[in-house]
Amino acid sequence: MNPANPLLETFRQSSYQLSNHGKRNVQVLKEAFEQIDGEVSSDMYGRGQIIEEFQEKMAAFLGKEQAVFFPSGTMAQQISMRIWCDEKNIHQVAYHPLSHLEIHEQDGLKKLHNIKTILLADKTRVIELEDIIKMKEDVACILLELPQREIGGQLPSFETLERISEYCAEQGIKLHLDGARLLEVLPYYQKTVTEVCALFDSVYMSFYKGIGGVAGAILAGEQGFIEQSKIWKTRHGGDLISLYPYIIPADYYFEKRSSKMYQYYEGAKELAALFNSCTGISTLPLVPVSNMFHVHFLQPLEQVKTILIEVQQQTGIGVSHYLKELDEESCSFEVNIGDQYENIPKELLFEAIKVLDENMNSI
Amino acid sequence: MNPANPLLETFRQSSYQLSNHGKRNVQVLKEAFEQIDGEVSSDMYGRGQIIEEFQEKMAAFLGKEQAVFFPSGTMAQQISMRIWCDEKNIHQVAYHPLSHLEIHEQDGLKKLHNIKTILLADKTRVIELEDIIKMKEDVACILLELPQREIGGQLPSFETLERISEYCAEQGIKLHLDGARLLEVLPYYQKTVTEVCALFDSVYMSFYKGIGGVAGAILAGEQGFIEQSKIWKTRHGGDLISLYPYIIPADYYFEKRSSKMYQYYEGAKELAALFNSCTGISTLPLVPVSNMFHVHFLQPLEQVKTILIEVQQQTGIGVSHYLKELDEESCSFEVNIGDQYENIPKELLFEAIKVLDENMNSI
Repeated sequence: MNPANPLLETFRQSSYQLSNHGKRNVQVLKEAFEQIDGEVSSDMYGRGQIIEEFQEKMAAFLGKEQAVFFPSGTMAQQISMRIWCDEKNIHQVAYHPLSHLEIHEQDGLKKLHNIKTILLADKTRVIELEDIIKMKEDVACILLELPQREIGGQLPSFETLERISEYCAEQGIKLHLDGARLLEVLPYYQKTVTEVCALFDSVYMSFYKGIGGVAGAILAGEQGFIEQSKIWKTRHGGDLISLYPYIIPADYYFEKRSSKMYQYYEGAKELAALFNSCTGISTLPLVPVSNMFHVHFLQPLEQVKTILIEVQQQTGIGVSHYLKELDEESCSFEVNIGDQYENIPKELLFEAIKVLDENMNSI
Repeated sequence: MNPANPLLETFRQSSYQLSNHGKRNVQVLKEAFEQIDGEVSSDMYGRGQIIEEFQEKMAAFLGKEQAVFFPSGTMAQQISMRIWCDEKNIHQVAYHPLSHLEIHEQDGLKKLHNIKTILLADKTRVIELEDIIKMKEDVACILLELPQREIGGQLPSFETLERISEYCAEQGIKLHLDGARLLEVLPYYQKTVTEVCALFDSVYMSFYKGIGGVAGAILAGEQGFIEQSKIWKTRHGGDLISLYPYIIPADYYFEKRSSKMYQYYEGAKELAALFNSCTGISTLPLVPVSNMFHVHFLQPLEQVKTILIEVQQQTGIGVSHYLKELDEESCSFEVNIGDQYENIPKELLFEAIKVLDENMNSI
């Protein structure tokens, strides 16, 4: 075998994969639609039973007055920032330096909404109350991402969240939850989703991370906020004639997986411990606080790549399809525990970790 | 029967409907996916075979260098305007007073992109070359909608299009085609799609009007333009992890219906003539130039509603599910000929027109 990308290729040919729920293929949609009667009417530009019922269900689930379904979180969150900025007439918000809005959205918030951003905390850690207190600038809103994905999915303590929420309320600053992986953090906090959401003025949750749907997001908050968000959704070009191709899978996989977050969390802790037992490997965070973590290698990327290819070929365990260079001497990849993890025979998993450790030792 | 909306109710219960391809229900999606193998991989944030192949196919079809799939035309067209405005550093564009961007998008172009708009021609007719020549303001781009939907789907002559295109090129004004119903106008112009598109710098086409897909749009133009549009698509929140739920139906119904536009156009002319034979009824335009037209009644809405309910109940022909008040003395609805029209037994159609005419006469 001499493919262009042997790491990806050996990953694809592996019998088991550590992360996620399975392949992102058309079957994900087909399975969700299998039991849906063809006679069910499409939603029409944000109206109709299929979208309204799901929005009501999600509003109730999150403990908010109303909710609206969006094709993407990018759209939902920019719009949230805009509404809070317009309300306070301050076109400035604050968030983490590695927020999705700052690094993955081609500066949409700045280019479309003309909103300036204040970066809180440094890149290596989560935002603490002190970062907010010492902020000199006036902001309309602070966005907190739980868990902070780009640093391995770290979390502030729940007490910190409560104190931040209280402080923001006192200061008249709106608090928005980037809950792309909201359900994934509940087992660590040992809180209900409504207890977490109650600390925030507006909440976004994704349907294709831990839940594993096709795409789409929900935005929840008070009635006036949601009504405005629907107008902005039209402005963004997100008020599609039919969103049911995302809503039906969102609902289907929500029902299938929202109760499995504890299992994913336990799997993440178990797998992280196995990685941490290997020479030259550590996870971030050391003990996961959700279903995700990053695996860091204290070796150059090319050497680690050779090792992972070897492990994947020899054991049939797909460890990762990619590696990200951190610097010349280290690299990493991300793990997201989903349905696939529990299917891996434990002896095969231990074997893969053993081969990985041996190879790391023999560099 | 005493439903809340008897016009809608009798329409729904009718055996045949004049307009469209059929119900917008989940079956539209299921039919398109029936022959698609579940193992087919999803597109991933604008990449992957499923999206790239369709984009290449559409670029070639429209005769443009490149194309990009968008979840909505609203998004695709605002972005087109923004790119042309940024390129010329003139944040002003011109279009028809009843353009989709002006009346159906909650002012997204103005609120998100800070672009001013010049309204060309008056509301009752299409834009002519003279409207453009006498425009005093500098604009980066002119948007032409073919056909002009809100006035019954009227069209300028092809010669006018050629002259406008030539004039804009001379003046350094970009010309953009709002081709939501692009294929629908080809039979009237007796031109190929590439002949029409060659007159424009950028072209948008929809997949859920004449083609009858689930949602989605294509934007086509030169490479540099399309590359920029992809960045703006991310900024708008339109670069979804998976767009295949729209792409697969777009391709499926494109193959099924793109060659049927002549049939729809002939049907529209036939049906318009039937309406024009009735007392107090006329169509706009009098002779359709695409698959669409508006039906105008010179009677108050409430009286016409009673008549349409009667026709729908008595003949089983669904004429319209709604009426729009024009003024106290007149009202209208829109007809879009699709697959359903050919299924109507002609004697039943003539019977419906006869009942309609008799009822209009007896007011």
